[in-house]
Amino acid sequence: MKTARVAYLGAIHHATEADGRLKLDDGRLVGEDDVVWLPPVEPKTVFALGLNYSDHAKELTFKAPEEPLVFLKGPNTFIGHRAETRRPADATNMHYECELVAVIGRKARNVKREDAYDYVAGYTVANDYAIRDYLENYYRPNLRVKNRDTCTPIGPWFVDAEDIADPMKLGLKTYVNGQLTQEGTTQDMIFSIPFLIEYLSGFMTLNEGDMILTGTPKGTVNTVVGDEVATEIEGIGRLVNTIAGDDAFNISK
Amino acid sequence: MKTARVAYLGAIHHATEADGRLKLDDGRLVGEDDVVWLPPVEPKTVFALGLNYSDHAKELTFKAPEEPLVFLKGPNTFIGHRAETRRPADATNMHYECELVAVIGRKARNVKREDAYDYVAGYTVANDYAIRDYLENYYRPNLRVKNRDTCTPIGPWFVDAEDIADPMKLGLKTYVNGQLTQEGTTQDMIFSIPFLIEYLSGFMTLNEGDMILTGTPKGTVNTVVGDEVATEIEGIGRLVNTIAGDDAFNISK
Repeated sequence: MKTARVAYLGAIHHATEADGRLKLDDGRLVGEDDVVWLPPVEPKTVFALGLNYSDHAKELTFKAPEEPLVFLKGPNTFIGHRAETRRPADATNMHYECELVAVIGRKARNVKREDAYDYVAGYTVANDYAIRDYLENYYRPNLRVKNRDTCTPIGPWFVDAEDIADPMKLGLKTYVNGQLTQEGTTQDMIFSIPFLIEYLSGFMTLNEGDMILTGTPKGTVNTVVGDEVATEIEGIGRLVNTIAGDDAFNISK
Repeated sequence: MKTARVAYLGAIHHATEADGRLKLDDGRLVGEDDVVWLPPVEPKTVFALGLNYSDHAKELTFKAPEEPLVFLKGPNTFIGHRAETRRPADATNMHYECELVAVIGRKARNVKREDAYDYVAGYTVANDYAIRDYLENYYRPNLRVKNRDTCTPIGPWFVDAEDIADPMKLGLKTYVNGQLTQEGTTQDMIFSIPFLIEYLSGFMTLNEGDMILTGTPKGTVNTVVGDEVATEIEGIGRLVNTIAGDDAFNISK
């Protein structure tokens, strides 16, 4: 089962797919363009992984980490499918990052790896943009790199865990203006979803609705204003997003 | 005006001080021991500063940072006044950190330093415990250092901004079991509250209720199970907290 969260005619609804249209939770059928797509899960505590694919670490000239590099993301960063992400005028390098998101289904504390999937409700897709200009900072990642407003589109679908046979064997692809620019597989993650749940729940409580953005493979490239970026994960969904300039956000500096 | 947020007889209330007792928002007078104290502001996006007092940076043998070192804290970390913070059995060094908290009053974007106080609703006290064992990690600070459950008591009071003549001239003190162990002044912050609001709002939106934990001066020491730790800031409040072991949290590892 795939569900979206959308705003339509003054209210927020859950919706399912119905032959290229959306079926709202009240039964109405609407066009995919007639709604505002919201993040399919309302963000609570959101974890993100740095350098969790060794080919991507190499691409950034970092050595692969020996333990998970996890940071938190603020609620200001999230937007839904078919929305705009701001590229600040002073950024010189803004990378997309196609990432599989694991959504926690129930309270998890000291969970062992072999039981970890029992705590996963489902999956979605994120594009966790990075402003690479500030990577040198002492605290990594600097909030300027990973915590800008609108820098993390997420969606379009929340897919139930039971529909995904093996989340560690899914293809990831990113297209910029229709051109394939990133291609990988979740098999190449350094720290798997079960490992991450064991790791995080070993020192803190994970709660229902918490999300883990599991990192991106190699193939990140700079994006510019006007680009349409589609991040796609096999069986989970295709998340489309557009890069917009400061003017679209009423920012002049 | 000073307000607390407390749970009493099945409901959450705001409360004010009344001759050593609490006056609930429905007019009832209750004892300070008869309520559960909650964080005085419900945590949304919470920023915390690393090494924002140069004497503390020196104490940890870090050089003072050239720009603010800011990280986010998850909602699992916060508890109120007179509560217990877990000291994990495998931690060898757990420091308290007395910190002034600035609470944002309204949406702030691209705010200049000279206007910054217009965006502050008020202040409270936090004790941002750190498990120092993991300071070496590549991503700083590792979530194991600063994002454990219950590791950040906050309160007891939210104090209106208009009641504090100059938040950059307040004494901070920490007492462990009644003994003074930390003493400093907010004058020694490297990056002041106005600077931090300009800095953060320059690349992301700050929203009403967001909080900035502004760092701690030198004088952090190890705490052990059973310690009573009181962090106190002049004119803002005295936050009392107890260190408890894994057993108090039903954790065996």
